[in-house]
Amino acid sequence: METKRNIDPNEICDKIKKGNITALSKAITLSESNIESDKILSNKILSNLKLDKKDTIRIGITGVPGAGKSTFIESFGNYLSDLGIKLAVLTIDPSSRSTKGSILGDKTRMETLSAKKNVFIRPSPASNFQGGVGKNTPETIFLCESAGYEVILIETVGVGQNEISVADMVDFFLLLKIAGSGDELQGIKRGIIEMSDLIVINKCDGDNIEESIKAKNEFKLALQLFPNKKSNWKPEVLTCSSINNEGLDNIWNSINQYIYLTKKNNYFFENRIKQSKSNLLKVIDESLRMSFFKRKSVNNKLEKLIQQIEDQEISVFEASQKIISEI
Amino acid sequence: METKRNIDPNEICDKIKKGNITALSKAITLSESNIESDKILSNKILSNLKLDKKDTIRIGITGVPGAGKSTFIESFGNYLSDLGIKLAVLTIDPSSRSTKGSILGDKTRMETLSAKKNVFIRPSPASNFQGGVGKNTPETIFLCESAGYEVILIETVGVGQNEISVADMVDFFLLLKIAGSGDELQGIKRGIIEMSDLIVINKCDGDNIEESIKAKNEFKLALQLFPNKKSNWKPEVLTCSSINNEGLDNIWNSINQYIYLTKKNNYFFENRIKQSKSNLLKVIDESLRMSFFKRKSVNNKLEKLIQQIEDQEISVFEASQKIISEI
Repeated sequence: METKRNIDPNEICDKIKKGNITALSKAITLSESNIESDKILSNKILSNLKLDKKDTIRIGITGVPGAGKSTFIESFGNYLSDLGIKLAVLTIDPSSRSTKGSILGDKTRMETLSAKKNVFIRPSPASNFQGGVGKNTPETIFLCESAGYEVILIETVGVGQNEISVADMVDFFLLLKIAGSGDELQGIKRGIIEMSDLIVINKCDGDNIEESIKAKNEFKLALQLFPNKKSNWKPEVLTCSSINNEGLDNIWNSINQYIYLTKKNNYFFENRIKQSKSNLLKVIDESLRMSFFKRKSVNNKLEKLIQQIEDQEISVFEASQKIISEI
Repeated sequence: METKRNIDPNEICDKIKKGNITALSKAITLSESNIESDKILSNKILSNLKLDKKDTIRIGITGVPGAGKSTFIESFGNYLSDLGIKLAVLTIDPSSRSTKGSILGDKTRMETLSAKKNVFIRPSPASNFQGGVGKNTPETIFLCESAGYEVILIETVGVGQNEISVADMVDFFLLLKIAGSGDELQGIKRGIIEMSDLIVINKCDGDNIEESIKAKNEFKLALQLFPNKKSNWKPEVLTCSSINNEGLDNIWNSINQYIYLTKKNNYFFENRIKQSKSNLLKVIDESLRMSFFKRKSVNNKLEKLIQQIEDQEISVFEASQKIISEI
């Protein structure tokens, strides 16, 4: 199988370690593939890449559509890149589920950022995002870090369940807001605010400055009502203007203060271990499924049961009991 | 284990078939439990309840917080109940993830509806909703239908990934909107609109009537731009006032027209079979996991690997390869 694709996992690993972008991209593509031979190869690459004890920062960025996520990532990414930081950006190619087409025309996004030499941008189709975040995001983060990227920005779309998944993969969670969007503190969104380490009021420019500062102060007041975080970090509220590149230094300072605090009180490491465990369980799940459905007897039985479900002879739950006896 | 809880699955099944609400509630609670003995019992109940070929309608209801979902469900539920329909309502007890507390005070919701004899209301804590909809929603739907409920209303919170999961469990998807909420057709939400079979502009009353009718017409125009649905159904846009109980007959008519069309062109049945298949695969996944982690050798190995992850000796992906060899 490996000869078929002409890919030697050890060679790929060596190249990734040297920061080779082609090898990195190839490894990410393999990890996203649903083809079995790709999966086997991907598992070899991932397990051969020994863990480096490097200092990296994983930052999740969320916000409703219209909050200016791509413009912010472009602006903040350029800021980090100019500081000499090796930056990886995992973006979502926003596409509608039924039409599978991209709405916002992602190819034109982040033009100046993608031209930077120390920046790696990886868009993933939203269709890969089952149950929230991309199912291979942990693999992609690990691969980018192995290739020497120091800060990983992970974009998420919408406000809802996916932020909860992303929060389980990052060190720091940044919520992007705009003034007057009217969704402050309402209903289920409280959960998103609670898991944020920093709220940034974006588009604080032009006619919008006064409103943005007002929104900032309102959020600051509101945050006082929230319970203390496990990390002991007091979430901040800042303003920024992505189009004018203003306020970025404050944001970067806040992130660094958070990292300093949570490394000191050990939360940073505890959180990463917790994430690793839950990630391990997910990988095990997938492997169990693969090995079960590889068996011929299982597939034959499943086929018959599905036929019986189609003929409305048995319920899903009766069928489950019958297939489970094969385990 | 069964004697411990004093529950005889056959007795429970008989009672559910007779519409006994206590037995139904108990069976739902068992299906939601994470305790192994409960799971075994629940599987017995679910597989013993033979499939009835009854006509039921499963309706998903979504909308952003503030669209008036509970008031609408109360109003529409009373309307259906007055028609003599046996109605089950699966609601979400909205709670914030970190604090685990309910925000909206669900106990006071749907007071008149819950007093009706032919109505069964089942709130589930939002914390059960991993990866979108409640993980046991298909089981709950099946149990309610076995108990003779004819229409099942399934509430979802927020607008995002969970609607995609709910759309995979229902026959009909209703999107509740209010005029002037400003989230029309923006970004990722296009996906939600695309999967809706009916858009209802709620709160069409008092000063809000003109705006609501305007919003209705805008949506009607916008819907023309969407591709045809697989069901061949042309989604409708209607207005309603939940507090004045107005517009409910139009909504119910629309649902019935949809059911008539999709049963005639067979989409209704094809869709249910597709849903059954995906549900079957989910149940298999869970059973595989349970049986793998029951083994002592697996647990010992897992413990050691987690320790090595904690000591930062190996990566998650190296650990996965090692545990997977146990499969």
